[in-house]
Amino acid sequence: MQNQIADLIETLIQDDYSPDAVNKAMSALTPDDVALALESLPLAQRKQAWESIKYANRLDILVEMRGESRQLLLRELDDIEIETLFSDVDAEDLLEIADSLPNRLVDIALNQMDNKQREYYQQGIVYDDDIVGRWINHDLLIASQSIRASEALRLLKKKTPNYTDMVYLVNRTGRWVGCVRFEQLFKAQDHEPVSNLIDEDCSFILANTELTKASELLEHSGLTALPVVDENHVLLGRFHAGLAMETWRLANEAQQMSTAGLNEESDLFAPVKCSAANRGIWLGINLLTAFLASAFINLFEATLQQVVALAVLMPVVASMGGIAGSQTLTLIVRGLALGQITRSNLKSLLSKELKVGGLNGVLWAIIIGIITLWWFNNPMLGVVIALAIILNIVMAALFGVLIPVLLDKLRIDPALSGSVVLTTVTDIAGFVAFLGLGTILLL
Amino acid sequence: MQNQIADLIETLIQDDYSPDAVNKAMSALTPDDVALALESLPLAQRKQAWESIKYANRLDILVEMRGESRQLLLRELDDIEIETLFSDVDAEDLLEIADSLPNRLVDIALNQMDNKQREYYQQGIVYDDDIVGRWINHDLLIASQSIRASEALRLLKKKTPNYTDMVYLVNRTGRWVGCVRFEQLFKAQDHEPVSNLIDEDCSFILANTELTKASELLEHSGLTALPVVDENHVLLGRFHAGLAMETWRLANEAQQMSTAGLNEESDLFAPVKCSAANRGIWLGINLLTAFLASAFINLFEATLQQVVALAVLMPVVASMGGIAGSQTLTLIVRGLALGQITRSNLKSLLSKELKVGGLNGVLWAIIIGIITLWWFNNPMLGVVIALAIILNIVMAALFGVLIPVLLDKLRIDPALSGSVVLTTVTDIAGFVAFLGLGTILLL
Repeated sequence: MQNQIADLIETLIQDDYSPDAVNKAMSALTPDDVALALESLPLAQRKQAWESIKYANRLDILVEMRGESRQLLLRELDDIEIETLFSDVDAEDLLEIADSLPNRLVDIALNQMDNKQREYYQQGIVYDDDIVGRWINHDLLIASQSIRASEALRLLKKKTPNYTDMVYLVNRTGRWVGCVRFEQLFKAQDHEPVSNLIDEDCSFILANTELTKASELLEHSGLTALPVVDENHVLLGRFHAGLAMETWRLANEAQQMSTAGLNEESDLFAPVKCSAANRGIWLGINLLTAFLASAFINLFEATLQQVVALAVLMPVVASMGGIAGSQTLTLIVRGLALGQITRSNLKSLLSKELKVGGLNGVLWAIIIGIITLWWFNNPMLGVVIALAIILNIVMAALFGVLIPVLLDKLRIDPALSGSVVLTTVTDIAGFVAFLGLGTILLL
Repeated sequence: MQNQIADLIETLIQDDYSPDAVNKAMSALTPDDVALALESLPLAQRKQAWESIKYANRLDILVEMRGESRQLLLRELDDIEIETLFSDVDAEDLLEIADSLPNRLVDIALNQMDNKQREYYQQGIVYDDDIVGRWINHDLLIASQSIRASEALRLLKKKTPNYTDMVYLVNRTGRWVGCVRFEQLFKAQDHEPVSNLIDEDCSFILANTELTKASELLEHSGLTALPVVDENHVLLGRFHAGLAMETWRLANEAQQMSTAGLNEESDLFAPVKCSAANRGIWLGINLLTAFLASAFINLFEATLQQVVALAVLMPVVASMGGIAGSQTLTLIVRGLALGQITRSNLKSLLSKELKVGGLNGVLWAIIIGIITLWWFNNPMLGVVIALAIILNIVMAALFGVLIPVLLDKLRIDPALSGSVVLTTVTDIAGFVAFLGLGTILLL
């Protein structure tokens, strides 16, 4: 499959291919494969490739594209094509692409939609795109709690949507009352009331739950899908394993991209100006912290002038602290995400991290001190760097615990901002310890 | 639920709780919740808590624990308890914990196992733990391809395992020949041969497929489970949505931990020596790259002595290059993982990244140049740092593309090693550019 996609990319990047051959290659692939291939093309070739796609397939492919890629493509299309594209869009697809569309185009799509779909859209759009409520699946088996097993079985025989192994029961006001497994229906007597067959393991998900949280609940339940309800327990739809798998796959991609301050919707071939602007924010934040560190180094200008070796070795002290701190930080951030860190174990945790920091600090201080002594032939410089390393690694452990816990208390995501704050602290602590000790002991 | 876990942790961390109250609190939670609570305790309290757990529940909890936590606990248990624990372990559980056990204990467990389970274990253990073959689920509906719909329906009525909406058909030699959806069985005439009802969308997964790849295939298929076969297409079992959700959840955790060079099996309260040793490797690698950078700075000792401001500003140049490079690197690593980068679009990609780097380089060079001029009141120093920033950001873009592509060609995972290699390059390039230009223009 991956080879077929690569072949398609190779073809589309040439200028002289026959649309027929391309369409044939595309028809062997799913819309998300084709979307991936389009995203791999420079913008000019992408537009050309788009035009060789059959009209009937275009909407599905557009829906599967990443946010920025979709926006770039939509910008190139005229209103007539967009109107045609959206002539039979459903709520789920429109919710997926709504953020890439100007309101005017959303209205065009809504006007062409049937009432049911429009209602689903309006229910979903009030939720952010990391919330279950936005992505509710409406293709499910619902039955009144007052029917009998034989009637429920008849329901199954009409149609069974993907990811379905249960029937959801509601009362007269539409509230969810329980789920019945297919297995129970198969085994039951025909006249058995379905309300006797309710599965105890099946619970509900509130519509305002986060997607990753909902995915954990679903995995926990061992079921293929769980009902989604509003705050009054009215059944809105369901959250199924396909959505959970997609949630995790995208969360994985988002996490990877966020380590470099990038958005997971970024396009590989976004126009130079857009890319430069998107990346600029992260560079700007970094510049502030770097200048802050420089300001602290500047305090020791006179010392540096007399002992240039200090300038040579500065990166060693700062980077060892940065690495040690990020190790502690990462462990704590995971602990916070898993709910493992409570008021009462925090003290033990801090004491353990300080001990690890102390041990590693002393160990690496000795190694670095000896290397420095040998390199610069200056025993006191070895002592200075060794002491600075111990101080900085212990400080890194301390702040590696405190910073994420504090950010979490302030309801700031420590996974995103923790490492910037921590590196600033360890850089400054490292430079001040090293140059300060140098000033005292070497001058 | 998260609150119940936190409450349990709070209780267990005290020294004076009644085992009965704890057991009651635990029985409201699933084994993985209890495992999480145990992992949140310092080691002494953890051992005590373990002893207050009912024997019948201990194995399930042990299986759910993270690798290092499990190993630490097992080390505390005597052989008699371990033998009792393993008296009815199944293949799946033993495969999960085998890596934390000495061979002697694995043999004890295997001796007590029934033949079928032992065979499953031996089939699974030959695969690494990121490969589908190790985690095959054996609880599935299999039928001969020669039966009729009514017979297949009878199979359903006996039992339907979780995550099941299909019956897998095999021929006489045990080879997989196709899948039939429940829906098709419901709709079919009683005497219809099942082989007429085979679903075209259902394909198979080879046992040696990577877990994340298999999870993608499953999500792609829209099905709840896919059959797993060996190289001769003999049906071994299946890979279901529960396994796929778990795969992604753990991959997410592993990715987060790996950014700090940590293993996802790490214990929050591992003994100080173990933690220090585990983290030491990453610190050691970092130390080598830091000393390498120092060696390059050392080339410009004379320059630094005369212009101390260069030492003060060094971190700014290095860190801007590091950030810009990691942005390019991250985009390319994602592209490689998705299969978006081919021979033919690499040139366009490189040219686009160089343009982005050029634009951001010039932009930030101007800003940093002006700040430097204002700070040190030295126009030529402003010019030196501006030129160094442009050079370093452009170099970062170049190597941000080339390093991951090269590592990928060498079959080294660029997600793990790319950023260490790149940061070393941008640090050195930054220092050499800045100090080199300083030597030429300022002395």
